[in-house]
Amino acid sequence: MTNPLPTGSTIGILGGGQLGRMLSVAAARLGLRTHIYEPGANPPAADVAHAVTTASYDDAAALGAFAKSVDVITYEFENIPTQALDVLEAIAPVFPGREALRISQDRLTEKDFLSELGLTTAPYKAIDSAEALDAALAEIGTPAILKTRRFGYDGKGQARISASSDAAQAFADMAGAPAILEGFVDFSHEVSVIAARALDGSVSAFDPGENVHKDGILRTTTVPARLSSAQRSDAVLLAARILNALNYVGVMGVELFVTPKGLIVNEIAPRVHNSGHWTQNGCAIDQFEQHIRAVAGWPLGDGQRHTDVVMENLIGDDMDRVADLAAEPDCALHLYGKAEVKPGRKMGHVNRIQRGKA
Amino acid sequence: MTNPLPTGSTIGILGGGQLGRMLSVAAARLGLRTHIYEPGANPPAADVAHAVTTASYDDAAALGAFAKSVDVITYEFENIPTQALDVLEAIAPVFPGREALRISQDRLTEKDFLSELGLTTAPYKAIDSAEALDAALAEIGTPAILKTRRFGYDGKGQARISASSDAAQAFADMAGAPAILEGFVDFSHEVSVIAARALDGSVSAFDPGENVHKDGILRTTTVPARLSSAQRSDAVLLAARILNALNYVGVMGVELFVTPKGLIVNEIAPRVHNSGHWTQNGCAIDQFEQHIRAVAGWPLGDGQRHTDVVMENLIGDDMDRVADLAAEPDCALHLYGKAEVKPGRKMGHVNRIQRGKA
Repeated sequence: MTNPLPTGSTIGILGGGQLGRMLSVAAARLGLRTHIYEPGANPPAADVAHAVTTASYDDAAALGAFAKSVDVITYEFENIPTQALDVLEAIAPVFPGREALRISQDRLTEKDFLSELGLTTAPYKAIDSAEALDAALAEIGTPAILKTRRFGYDGKGQARISASSDAAQAFADMAGAPAILEGFVDFSHEVSVIAARALDGSVSAFDPGENVHKDGILRTTTVPARLSSAQRSDAVLLAARILNALNYVGVMGVELFVTPKGLIVNEIAPRVHNSGHWTQNGCAIDQFEQHIRAVAGWPLGDGQRHTDVVMENLIGDDMDRVADLAAEPDCALHLYGKAEVKPGRKMGHVNRIQRGKA
Repeated sequence: MTNPLPTGSTIGILGGGQLGRMLSVAAARLGLRTHIYEPGANPPAADVAHAVTTASYDDAAALGAFAKSVDVITYEFENIPTQALDVLEAIAPVFPGREALRISQDRLTEKDFLSELGLTTAPYKAIDSAEALDAALAEIGTPAILKTRRFGYDGKGQARISASSDAAQAFADMAGAPAILEGFVDFSHEVSVIAARALDGSVSAFDPGENVHKDGILRTTTVPARLSSAQRSDAVLLAARILNALNYVGVMGVELFVTPKGLIVNEIAPRVHNSGHWTQNGCAIDQFEQHIRAVAGWPLGDGQRHTDVVMENLIGDDMDRVADLAAEPDCALHLYGKAEVKPGRKMGHVNRIQRGKA
């Protein structure tokens, strides 16, 4: 790989959803091409990509041909099978690197890593039996939440335990998958930091955004978040500590709970993040371009906020509101081109510019 | 054509240069696909388009297949051959419409149209012989400029006449093409209005930008332009008059000279315009999305400026500055992915955000 990647180079992206789509657009802005690897047909990213491979993550031949056709590989989701990575890494560099994936693919490993870094997380225990769950509940207390260690997203693979009588059902819900019990955190609100680290080790973070979830899915991100200047600085330094510890290259989303006792790390995502979509209309350089810059060996761009923004996800039937949203002042639409509307499916988002507040 | 075009619909774009490329990205933002029609191989727009047809404008079969595959057709340049339009229009709607193309394809027709609308242009005369040129020079005076009536862009097909002794050479430079002599206008600066008109007749204009050219090529656009509030309002009303007179659908660029006696129309372009690139970083809705909205039967978006911007074109060897520009604060890069750098070739542009001035 030549650094920085010159015009006409190709970035391979694993995953063709909306994140891959917006990464492709950002790559194009820098004169770079993208090649999408995606098992599903007609992925959203295909509309704006130079090339698309439709194949599964266990198709070694397709993975090899894909890796040979690109200059560097990145991804829009963290659950990439280890064997696929083995094939890809032998041919082209993969950013963010293996360690970030290993850690973020498993909630237990992630919590251990964060704790070893000296960061605060919710209390947690590994759960591999009903007995272990009972013992952990006795220590952590209720309410608590039982989660599969791997492959959870948007609230899937989770069971809330309000009282110890819920334990048996919650454990059954895990269907035998290794799990982790997390204690509830008494937080006032959730914020996230979208931070980037370049190949040369420089780090840049966007202003923290304040997130509101509903049914386990992000609904809105408001920037700036309600944080004291000390909290704001803590949030950014904490994110930088995580990126540096991983020798990370790319953009990471770090979700934080704001509590009277300080910031608690909820989870990290080694990729561009839904809570960073506001940057498309609030900054000269958005999170997608920042990620592409990092993995392409470019310098990070200027992510200073020039405008306050409220981002709102359009989920499922929210698409019925598109005609109204299209006519709303100071409202920037970002639709993903998904043909089928399903309940809970992220179909697009809007960034509402908060005029004169930056 | 269904109005507004729903998610997954396809917009056909004639021309695969940087304007087609940025139109494709804007279409994707609205969940729409694009199909590019372009005679040249590997056009910049191909990297971000759903489909590409590589064929010439006299290939009726290719034009027909292209038109059948799309819901509506638009274009990134005005010199589309009449016969190609005949084929396309029989199958799919073409916006902006025929009348706008007819007028803007010929400098003489354009000047006549503007004059009939009551707008002021530079003094002009049709030239079809050396004698006509001598007579026109006697009336208009020098300096003046002789231009081919058709197919001119970026200063090509033009000859400056400083004294009547230059006339013979200038006429020879036209190589027999029908021409127009234009008198020089004593202007202080040039501005342009990027205006849009929707299918329902509503009109919206971006703030006028102030343009600086060098060697006949746009170098910078600065927004806001130096204009009194009366001039600003005149500029926008004048653009709206042009769009309404043509029953126009889409974005138009209107170049104006600012003179002590008022605004003089230099030329119009029935498409997105280089002097509107600043809108990508200064507005919630940029000129590319505004154009796509119009031709797709959507409502126009909110083009109010939220940030002052200076746009600078990157031409030819300016690409050597990309590494520096990438690291410059508040500087948004927009590269076109063109493989070959040539003198005078537009390779990209930057939008420099003027923080805190909006």
